[in-house]
Amino acid sequence: MAQNIYDDPEFQKNYAKLPRSVEGLSGAPEWPALRAMLPDLAGSKVLDLGCGFGWFCRFAREAGAESVLGLDVSERMLARARAETSDQRIIYERADLHQLELEASLFDLAYSSLALHYVRDLPRLLNEVHRGLRPRGSFVFSIEHPIYMAPTRPGWASDAEGRRTWPVDSYAVEGMRRTHWLGGRVIKYHRTLGTTLNALIGCGFTILHVEEWSPSPAQITEHPELSEERDRPMFALISARRQ
Amino acid sequence: MAQNIYDDPEFQKNYAKLPRSVEGLSGAPEWPALRAMLPDLAGSKVLDLGCGFGWFCRFAREAGAESVLGLDVSERMLARARAETSDQRIIYERADLHQLELEASLFDLAYSSLALHYVRDLPRLLNEVHRGLRPRGSFVFSIEHPIYMAPTRPGWASDAEGRRTWPVDSYAVEGMRRTHWLGGRVIKYHRTLGTTLNALIGCGFTILHVEEWSPSPAQITEHPELSEERDRPMFALISARRQ
Repeated sequence: MAQNIYDDPEFQKNYAKLPRSVEGLSGAPEWPALRAMLPDLAGSKVLDLGCGFGWFCRFAREAGAESVLGLDVSERMLARARAETSDQRIIYERADLHQLELEASLFDLAYSSLALHYVRDLPRLLNEVHRGLRPRGSFVFSIEHPIYMAPTRPGWASDAEGRRTWPVDSYAVEGMRRTHWLGGRVIKYHRTLGTTLNALIGCGFTILHVEEWSPSPAQITEHPELSEERDRPMFALISARRQ
Repeated sequence: MAQNIYDDPEFQKNYAKLPRSVEGLSGAPEWPALRAMLPDLAGSKVLDLGCGFGWFCRFAREAGAESVLGLDVSERMLARARAETSDQRIIYERADLHQLELEASLFDLAYSSLALHYVRDLPRLLNEVHRGLRPRGSFVFSIEHPIYMAPTRPGWASDAEGRRTWPVDSYAVEGMRRTHWLGGRVIKYHRTLGTTLNALIGCGFTILHVEEWSPSPAQITEHPELSEERDRPMFALISARRQ
């Protein structure tokens, strides 16, 4: 069983206050870039890996998806997701991404927002996603960027000239990272960007787009605190296609 | 005309002392990883972009290449490259990668070691390389890693606990970086890894492998000073195939 900090009451209370939990997709600054990487959803079967409160599942239906399967390990998040829609074409199921098994060649799009860096055995999961997609099906996902995740002590620092820097170490040392976030202990798995891309290629995906997300000038004007994201990327957004 | 610091006498004197200048490919710790990404060279036509002293050109002929064209902007380096072989199937020509024009569909492999980060307009060059390759031809190259190149003041630092760190800033701020290296002023062009990959994909390459190089345990045993390369990648190695 994977860690399930999302069912920890204290963590969940804090997580529920994040802009992306309150406002949904529009509260996630990387969403416009991720949305731009999506294929046309009209008539498609969509899978959301780590669906959380179900914001993307509802978006997909509004964008014309025929059906959406949202999977998450957190009962609390699934309960809220279920409470927020009466749409019969959205199914929420509890699933652990570490043990996921999918019906073959069913989905046109597999989507995942900020969930895959919690998965220890990424190649196993990617193979399963590949199997679950129809030929030429799309896989679009975001992960924490390895520059963000690599350091032994992640956090901003100042250099001798007072410039904000993100001190990187252990970039090539892949594996577990234990951090504190929102009052909880979180376990993540650091992989270089190359490792993630090669794992995708290795199980038969073609890489379509790799975006080390940073905010647009307009986003920084509206939310000046986002300017630090220009100094080091927090998210990597990747789209790939099943061959 | 591109910068041509490689013809600066002082810089060249220092450059000629680097292990990779003295020992050739075996003096470059990333070479075994780059070599592993090469296709079979038997009977192939090979292009080397930024061939320097011609080490790779001679390797390619020894590995069975039918012919090799080595291009470089530095007359000094080409002079030494020409002096070190009498092989008629290796041609060295002076060329500026900023203005490169290639015959269409001629080469089976385009190769480049640590040259493309000097090129301002990368998409233009990548399009030209794509045009010069035969269908399903290979493009294998190394560049300075963007984590290495991004910082305003690139260099190691120590954090409060004395741990060696590589302070990153300006990662999303692409464009010119002026640095000092080997007694000379060097101008390089920082691009995120995503930008380089998307430029390849955009002109019709399929990404085959992305390696953020780090030394093997055996290499660190032999050269302990390489251990710092585990903390932040200095080189990115990429292979792609013309569709």
